[in-house]
Amino acid sequence: MVFELNEIKTREKGLSLINHKITNYGMNSLIDLTGLAGGFDITSEDITMLETYAGPAVFDEKIQQLGKEHLGGEKILPLNRTTSGIAAMIIALVKPGTKIVHYLPEKPGHPSIPRTAELIGAEYVEYSNLDEFTIDDNTSLVVITGTTMDYEIISIEDFEYVINKAHEKDITVFVDDASGARLRRAIYDQPTAIDLGADLSVTSTDKLMEGPRGGLMAGSAKLIDEIKLVVNQYGWEAQAPLVAGMIKGLEKYSPERIQEAFKQKDELYKMLISQGVDARKTPTGFMFKEEDIKNELEKRGMTIDLPTDLLATIYSMLLLSMYSIITIPAVGMPGASKTIRIDWSSKDSSKLSMDDLIFAIMDTFDHVIEVILEGEIEETLYLED
Amino acid sequence: MVFELNEIKTREKGLSLINHKITNYGMNSLIDLTGLAGGFDITSEDITMLETYAGPAVFDEKIQQLGKEHLGGEKILPLNRTTSGIAAMIIALVKPGTKIVHYLPEKPGHPSIPRTAELIGAEYVEYSNLDEFTIDDNTSLVVITGTTMDYEIISIEDFEYVINKAHEKDITVFVDDASGARLRRAIYDQPTAIDLGADLSVTSTDKLMEGPRGGLMAGSAKLIDEIKLVVNQYGWEAQAPLVAGMIKGLEKYSPERIQEAFKQKDELYKMLISQGVDARKTPTGFMFKEEDIKNELEKRGMTIDLPTDLLATIYSMLLLSMYSIITIPAVGMPGASKTIRIDWSSKDSSKLSMDDLIFAIMDTFDHVIEVILEGEIEETLYLED
Repeated sequence: MVFELNEIKTREKGLSLINHKITNYGMNSLIDLTGLAGGFDITSEDITMLETYAGPAVFDEKIQQLGKEHLGGEKILPLNRTTSGIAAMIIALVKPGTKIVHYLPEKPGHPSIPRTAELIGAEYVEYSNLDEFTIDDNTSLVVITGTTMDYEIISIEDFEYVINKAHEKDITVFVDDASGARLRRAIYDQPTAIDLGADLSVTSTDKLMEGPRGGLMAGSAKLIDEIKLVVNQYGWEAQAPLVAGMIKGLEKYSPERIQEAFKQKDELYKMLISQGVDARKTPTGFMFKEEDIKNELEKRGMTIDLPTDLLATIYSMLLLSMYSIITIPAVGMPGASKTIRIDWSSKDSSKLSMDDLIFAIMDTFDHVIEVILEGEIEETLYLED
Repeated sequence: MVFELNEIKTREKGLSLINHKITNYGMNSLIDLTGLAGGFDITSEDITMLETYAGPAVFDEKIQQLGKEHLGGEKILPLNRTTSGIAAMIIALVKPGTKIVHYLPEKPGHPSIPRTAELIGAEYVEYSNLDEFTIDDNTSLVVITGTTMDYEIISIEDFEYVINKAHEKDITVFVDDASGARLRRAIYDQPTAIDLGADLSVTSTDKLMEGPRGGLMAGSAKLIDEIKLVVNQYGWEAQAPLVAGMIKGLEKYSPERIQEAFKQKDELYKMLISQGVDARKTPTGFMFKEEDIKNELEKRGMTIDLPTDLLATIYSMLLLSMYSIITIPAVGMPGASKTIRIDWSSKDSSKLSMDDLIFAIMDTFDHVIEVILEGEIEETLYLED
């Protein structure tokens, strides 16, 4: 039997597990270690402002100020999602038949970029090696991704090299700085993308900060106005309550907490190694890629003939159902990475000890094997019809 | 001197006026008669639920139930905006080179439909006359708009005629029922679009109900899943706080209030006529189209050589700055209709008497003339640089 992962159905199952836990054990029973905190820490005073035409007026002023402090640039555009902003940016700036060139530390880039390129009929090419990097005359946009999903970053020198190459040809440079806007700055002491010379940058307000899922774009007033027009035309802007949550997230943002987790992750990592588990370090925790999950299972004596994305999703679903620990594969959007990422800078890491976490991680590997042996994969991943 | 309206800048001015009024005189000083109430009437209990991964799980179940009661269908898709849902629906269902056929009571249709058709390289044609209406074999989607911006509606017979014509050729029928999902039902006693046989329908949760700006789409589970995939891929879904607001809006929805306003509008209309003003009736109030504003100004003895969209926007901006009455042209998204629409079913209509409203309407015409005569158009429409 061939299993092909239905990601819409796994997400529905994951969300249903969460719903069940909240209903029966309360919000505090959940441990969100995704690092995508997603807070809407807004007051009742904020709520009275949340009227369609009144809210934006009040919140726009604050988000402009806080966003510019965080990202640089002349003007800020709050977005329903980083992804919706990337789509609008490409529609606004890239003509059909021209080329988007993407430099990133590790392929592949975020799927929204090639997807939107294809939608409008633009070419798309990725480089992760600067020796091969070329910008031909038909290029209308250069994209740089500042960090990988695994929190590797590119150096200031590489940033500047790509930006200069693009600007020599008068090509706009856009930086996808989803988590980088904080990681690069708090941990690696780099400047903002705009201060490095980029024309535009976007960040996710739920990555390494306690804002809601959403995006903030920064750049010159002229470029932001062009993109804002597309965003408004298609309905992709962040609405007032999202902007209110972003404001609170930016106000509470703490580089120190990221720095603290950055230190503690070494200890966590040692504990895993002492248990014989090969995890990968991240700046604020550790992770297992799809293939790592398979390797750990095979270490336990199994030969497994199942796709790695399926295995990682089963692992994530069981970690949620048994230990109430939320990781992305069980609840992420279709196409999201299947990496199991434990972010120790998450607010919820205070809900359990390092020992508790290591126990849950180990025990869940055993349960994945049980599910496979007993033929319970579908029951584990999907809701009953 | 030629004035070309900069709608991004007028919206910024309008929102800034609102911000100023809230800061100095409080939320209650504003009178929102747009009929786009935009409530986020959520409790502090709701707020604790508003976490990225937890919120959707809790709210999804409720919105599915309430949405299906309101719209029919098997499954509901909550959207950041009606417009973002229309874009996703077209991307999911329409192949480049095929044709979208739109039947609507009055041209032109909502700009998002031809805009997205152009984006993906599809043909687009509109019919407002059923005698001319034809669906050729290359057609991949039939769109019906249930009501005009002016609240005219199409008959059940015309609905069924178009749906049957499309279904004879196995073509999917999508109904843009932005306000129609309530207007058609509460005032004209029509069935839901789905019950009329349509495959999909979408409604705006801020039109004739007190929900936030946002959209709800309904249809078969299969079609909704296809569209939901595109929505998630591009980041166009309604996030948890929006869904929470939609739930409250649907719970509070009152067909009776629409019916009441429908009766009172006759009285308002008579008062305007007795003052010599030619307004147009709407089911729940009255309106002036761009050209009506010009006519009223010329009745006052002026010959005006300015575009009508500019005149309507000046009128709307002055109604806001002097009487705190919010209408769309001063604060709407770029491309929004420049019709001055007074919706007496708005919650805020309780903040003023019919006499107060008529006085404000009349006085604002005089002030538009003043602004033109004194060359203060730019100061009125835009923020100072």
